[in-house]
Amino acid sequence: MDIAAKDIARDLMLVRQRSPLVHNITNYVAMNTTANALLAVGASPVMAHAPEEVEDMVAIASALVINIGTLSEPWVDSMSRAARRAKQKGIPIIYDPVGAGATPYRTRTFHALLQAASPSVIRGNPSEIIAAAGAISRTKGVDSSDAAESALAGARSLGRQCDCVVCVSGATDFVVGRDRMALVRNGHALMPKVTGLGCTATALCGAFAAVDADPFKATVAAMAVMSIAGEIAAEKSAGPGSLQLHFLDALYNLDAKEIARRLKLEEAPLPG
Amino acid sequence: MDIAAKDIARDLMLVRQRSPLVHNITNYVAMNTTANALLAVGASPVMAHAPEEVEDMVAIASALVINIGTLSEPWVDSMSRAARRAKQKGIPIIYDPVGAGATPYRTRTFHALLQAASPSVIRGNPSEIIAAAGAISRTKGVDSSDAAESALAGARSLGRQCDCVVCVSGATDFVVGRDRMALVRNGHALMPKVTGLGCTATALCGAFAAVDADPFKATVAAMAVMSIAGEIAAEKSAGPGSLQLHFLDALYNLDAKEIARRLKLEEAPLPG
Amino acid sequence: MDIAAKDIARDLMLVRQRSPLVHNITNYVAMNTTANALLAVGASPVMAHAPEEVEDMVAIASALVINIGTLSEPWVDSMSRAARRAKQKGIPIIYDPVGAGATPYRTRTFHALLQAASPSVIRGNPSEIIAAAGAISRTKGVDSSDAAESALAGARSLGRQCDCVVCVSGATDFVVGRDRMALVRNGHALMPKVTGLGCTATALCGAFAAVDADPFKATVAAMAVMSIAGEIAAEKSAGPGSLQLHFLDALYNLDAKEIARRLKLEEAPLPG
Repeated sequence: MDIAAKDIARDLMLVRQRSPLVHNITNYVAMNTTANALLAVGASPVMAHAPEEVEDMVAIASALVINIGTLSEPWVDSMSRAARRAKQKGIPIIYDPVGAGATPYRTRTFHALLQAASPSVIRGNPSEIIAAAGAISRTKGVDSSDAAESALAGARSLGRQCDCVVCVSGATDFVVGRDRMALVRNGHALMPKVTGLGCTATALCGAFAAVDADPFKATVAAMAVMSIAGEIAAEKSAGPGSLQLHFLDALYNLDAKEIARRLKLEEAPLPG
Repeated sequence: MDIAAKDIARDLMLVRQRSPLVHNITNYVAMNTTANALLAVGASPVMAHAPEEVEDMVAIASALVINIGTLSEPWVDSMSRAARRAKQKGIPIIYDPVGAGATPYRTRTFHALLQAASPSVIRGNPSEIIAAAGAISRTKGVDSSDAAESALAGARSLGRQCDCVVCVSGATDFVVGRDRMALVRNGHALMPKVTGLGCTATALCGAFAAVDADPFKATVAAMAVMSIAGEIAAEKSAGPGSLQLHFLDALYNLDAKEIARRLKLEEAPLPG
Repeated sequence: MDIAAKDIARDLMLVRQRSPLVHNITNYVAMNTTANALLAVGASPVMAHAPEEVEDMVAIASALVINIGTLSEPWVDSMSRAARRAKQKGIPIIYDPVGAGATPYRTRTFHALLQAASPSVIRGNPSEIIAAAGAISRTKGVDSSDAAESALAGARSLGRQCDCVVCVSGATDFVVGRDRMALVRNGHALMPKVTGLGCTATALCGAFAAVDADPFKATVAAMAVMSIAGEIAAEKSAGPGSLQLHFLDALYNLDAKEIARRLKLEEAPLPG
């Protein structure tokens, strides 16, 4: 793979140097956690959702992160406005289809967002990516709703149609680009026991995409930094409460040496 | 009392095994904390409030928890929709009348919720339960707004009229059933210094009611698990910041042995 | 300076004794953190934003804190209602112009809030105070958007026009009163890496203004308590995650001796 630990460390250094303003329109549950993670990694978070100001906020931002975790109509309207403005301005857009597939409203809303503006990166868990892919390709008959295989096929299809990077995250994170796929095998089983860490990964993709013009590399770097910080934190933690704390400390203290020592990154053939 | 430590441990084991989806329509302050507590105890939390999707979310959930802590009209509408759908589907509904009595709007809204669908369990502090009871029985002249005695009389009246379990929580938690009452004497004085722990107790009632068909036993189990985890956490804590962290760790690590060792559960004659 | 450590300790003791109800209409990101900080310092927080109840909540509150961090029209309407009711009732009102200057909507909204009711205290970072001052005085051509000098001139102008105390916070906190200025030189460089600590400082101003009729002294006390707790916390912290935890513990445990030992408070001539 042409992405090495030093490239990831370089992106992290750029985030810290430039402190990009990442505009988040995200869910109520994860807002505090994602804002703290963005600060810890070195970025500048801003949360703003009023239709009166989202376009102005995009105008001063370096990336836009949209997460549909606790959506409602007024927010959906603002998400579309912000996405269109970001597209026009040319800053990276990152989508997190939280709960796509769980209700028709979420799947439909995500579809509408893709119509408003295609993103640079989409990150979700397997069942969300399958639902998101279905929203576009209208495939039927997905049997195992979260089988990694279906998710990768969905990611591939979604990525092709939106011309974007798709990350299917889990014990292994799969980053599916146009012509290649990376596997990040870092992380820890305790991480899903803390709410909002998926949303946090998406927000970090925004921070890294703001400093690395290649969204594939930016996503790999964000997922690696996220997973390595989680791994370091979990080793010190007695449970999900302490994990949350150590995770922010680990993000803040992460350095090139630790990235090099821990990184488990592989290239793999693209699915389907 | 016919509820022993092993019954509580069994309910906890069932929550961990089945990981019931608990649909929360709750307040902004406690969302993150309750989601984390539900994850730590082994349940699957989901937060969703859009009228377009609450009924679909209820359709896949095993319990519905409604908390009026930061209510507003669009949310109240969704709460009623969700409650009616949950009633129709037959899953347990848990209400938390946060701030009932503090403003007429909260008391009125709670009354409307009771009209929309009667719950399996109501949990609140003494003054909230008194206000909630007044909303139904229209009693006047409650003098000492949070005297345990008035609260127990209110709980009894509320429970009879709604045919539900009512938990009055505080230093001692009183669980008032149709024909019996349990007292959980666990917990720690530092717990009320962390915001959202009352809301968290209500959310845990949802997780336990999802796996135990007897709402009285489920509520006793939830309150015991909550209070014991808080007690363990407080012993390790230098203040409310560390309590919050250790509480989630303690919930995650709680086992049958620790429950048996610590449980302070009593039966008492029903008031009134 | 006529404010000594013992005066600050006395205000803190009064907050703990009286546990004033502080009504917050604040942003989603900081709600949990500010509620926890208010509890840790000894106050009683309540968050309520529905137009149906804000006036009733103000009626039972001892201070009103308004923060525009994640504003939208329905909230702005409630903010104005609550502010007018608080003014009428005569309880202290504290404004936090989060992001003023970042978008026209925020600056405009803050201006409208000042029209609805002038506050006792405004607290913001330098660029917010400059923008807030501009909203009133319509000054043009502020070049260095966060230079301390411009901010102090803005604070002075804003304070004069609204007849209120203005706090410009940062590495040093400047508290600008009608005829004097105090500098709080406590705090730690790690504090801005935790989201919502500025909002928390504003909320603490509310708690202290509820027990000290002199808003200048109340603001100095709140900022000193905030900064000293942050300093104590930072000394024990490995990063922003642990800072958040230790901060709440430090607030909860802070005593007169520690305040006296650490306080770095100076009087300085008023700018301009």
